[in-house]
Amino acid sequence: MSRYWSDIVHRLVPYVPGEQPALAKPVKLNTNENPYPPSPRVVEAIRAELGDHGESLRRYPDPVSKRLRAAVAAHHGLNTDQVFVGNGSDEVLAHAFQALLKHDLPLLFPDITYSFYPTYARLYDVQYRTVPLDDAFAIRIEDYAQPNGGVIFPNPNAPTGHALPLAQIEKLVAANTESVVVIDEAYVDFGAESAIALIDRYPNLLVVHTTSKSRSLAGMRVGFAFGHADLIDALNRVKDSFNSYPLDRLAQAAATAAYEDADWLRTTSSRVMASREKLTAALVQLGFEVVPSAANFVFARHPQHDAVLISTKLREQEIFVRHFNAPRVNQHLRISIGTDAECDTLVAALKDIVK
Amino acid sequence: MSRYWSDIVHRLVPYVPGEQPALAKPVKLNTNENPYPPSPRVVEAIRAELGDHGESLRRYPDPVSKRLRAAVAAHHGLNTDQVFVGNGSDEVLAHAFQALLKHDLPLLFPDITYSFYPTYARLYDVQYRTVPLDDAFAIRIEDYAQPNGGVIFPNPNAPTGHALPLAQIEKLVAANTESVVVIDEAYVDFGAESAIALIDRYPNLLVVHTTSKSRSLAGMRVGFAFGHADLIDALNRVKDSFNSYPLDRLAQAAATAAYEDADWLRTTSSRVMASREKLTAALVQLGFEVVPSAANFVFARHPQHDAVLISTKLREQEIFVRHFNAPRVNQHLRISIGTDAECDTLVAALKDIVK
Repeated sequence: MSRYWSDIVHRLVPYVPGEQPALAKPVKLNTNENPYPPSPRVVEAIRAELGDHGESLRRYPDPVSKRLRAAVAAHHGLNTDQVFVGNGSDEVLAHAFQALLKHDLPLLFPDITYSFYPTYARLYDVQYRTVPLDDAFAIRIEDYAQPNGGVIFPNPNAPTGHALPLAQIEKLVAANTESVVVIDEAYVDFGAESAIALIDRYPNLLVVHTTSKSRSLAGMRVGFAFGHADLIDALNRVKDSFNSYPLDRLAQAAATAAYEDADWLRTTSSRVMASREKLTAALVQLGFEVVPSAANFVFARHPQHDAVLISTKLREQEIFVRHFNAPRVNQHLRISIGTDAECDTLVAALKDIVK
Repeated sequence: MSRYWSDIVHRLVPYVPGEQPALAKPVKLNTNENPYPPSPRVVEAIRAELGDHGESLRRYPDPVSKRLRAAVAAHHGLNTDQVFVGNGSDEVLAHAFQALLKHDLPLLFPDITYSFYPTYARLYDVQYRTVPLDDAFAIRIEDYAQPNGGVIFPNPNAPTGHALPLAQIEKLVAANTESVVVIDEAYVDFGAESAIALIDRYPNLLVVHTTSKSRSLAGMRVGFAFGHADLIDALNRVKDSFNSYPLDRLAQAAATAAYEDADWLRTTSSRVMASREKLTAALVQLGFEVVPSAANFVFARHPQHDAVLISTKLREQEIFVRHFNAPRVNQHLRISIGTDAECDTLVAALKDIVK
């Protein structure tokens, strides 16, 4: 607290990211990282950009990430002017709140969702209203048929993993013509349908992606928004009023290579999905209730065991899962899908805890 | 333009970065990049973080850049809680505008200065007033003795290269107790005195640095703010409401290594300063008026030759310098210091143009 702070700083409630434990070999199932490394082409591309002596590093990167945007546009069948790039999808979302979601009417998002949304809203003084999920933790599209300055939710939703079918998303976007609908598809590659297919028909749709999950590049900070060129233009105007060069040279090279290796994405995502189904079955076997997930995590509770207690006992064995101290979900744990070996370690530990 | 844009987007005037020409071997003296590569330790550190298969890239980076902040704090004799890290100093400056410079009274900065400042002010709706430089393009400290919500300028100033002595900076900071003074020291390592020495005595001083110039890491996007822990706290609160992980793993490794090699900084900066003095003498010889520079660029005009015309003729020979179409300086060119060979090429071309 200080008299030198701008007013807004006093009102902020900063986001708290998942713990990064400083341990040699934690079973780290708390931040939805991919258990597999990125495509070997990513490593090659970084080495090529680095060269023998890092000669290129003294030069500014391409401020508009032209090559990267071209690779991503080609992958999704879009034009490059429908693609925005940022320093992780968190930065992309922040720009979207400031550029597209701040209006007189309140922004709508689910009561249980990505906990960064209310933080962004405070940062940019965006009015918002939360809309309750139903009792099965599903988003009911009809609840969003009310005056609003924008709608945002993840699909699959976080931290539930619950996915809406594309037809439901289209129904919402088609009805909500007066404001922008942002579909945050951080986890879409693990079994949900992408709304990118709708972009050419709906000028009010913005789809946000990240390389942090299915492309195993959380460490490189690259995210995207896809939408009508007018929406992308707004994001670029904010970006160019904030930081002209949001992506460094190695991040641009890494992400471009990741998009050029679609096989790697398919193979590793399939393995994660198979592990998810196996883990879900094992958890159910132990008496857990598990929300059906289309993401690289599951959201589960045990009717007879306190979530914080389970989490604490796991932690003692260097197994990390995520607990959210929030209404309706404070008896749930969000468990990222690790390798089969990591999932087995978790299940063995849980068996001891709940027996 | 779109009805979906937030109000603020319509009012933005985005910053335009210097051109990045897509040529094999341009003589690129337009964006103040270092002519020498980064320390060999930087390349080693990136390779070490990358490993054989990029195993670490699937994991989020350290959100608070602990190791990097420790290295930089040690280098400058500060505590780590006096160090803030961002995705290039442009991002750091943006956060400072939002967190510390937005108040009821207007922010003050020079009429001729870094052209991103008015852009940030529009992005965050910060009222500002410009204060004219004197006729020799010097900042007069006494002109800032007026009610204000903050003061910001680069030292050395951009694009003039003119530096204020530390005693003048201290006079301003000591007198201006009611608001924050930001000294943007992007170019300080090329011959000016850093205000970091004053931080322990003045809780209203924030000093901003970058690895883009003297540390040859423009391509990696790493910048800093140094100041009282309360000021750093404000920046962290904004950062954690915007993007928890602003620096990727390779950028953190690169910048840490750069700060651990102080010899490389000294050697390369000395070479740049020697080239600057040689280039200045050659320009004066050709009839240019050159502002005395403590930066890695010079600001020059020729009384008999139009600046745009000179710049255009240089461009035809793939030599790039920067022209600002702004009052008082539209007959000047800002010329980054290249290698001696690049400076010689420039001088030979100018000799032809002005003869």
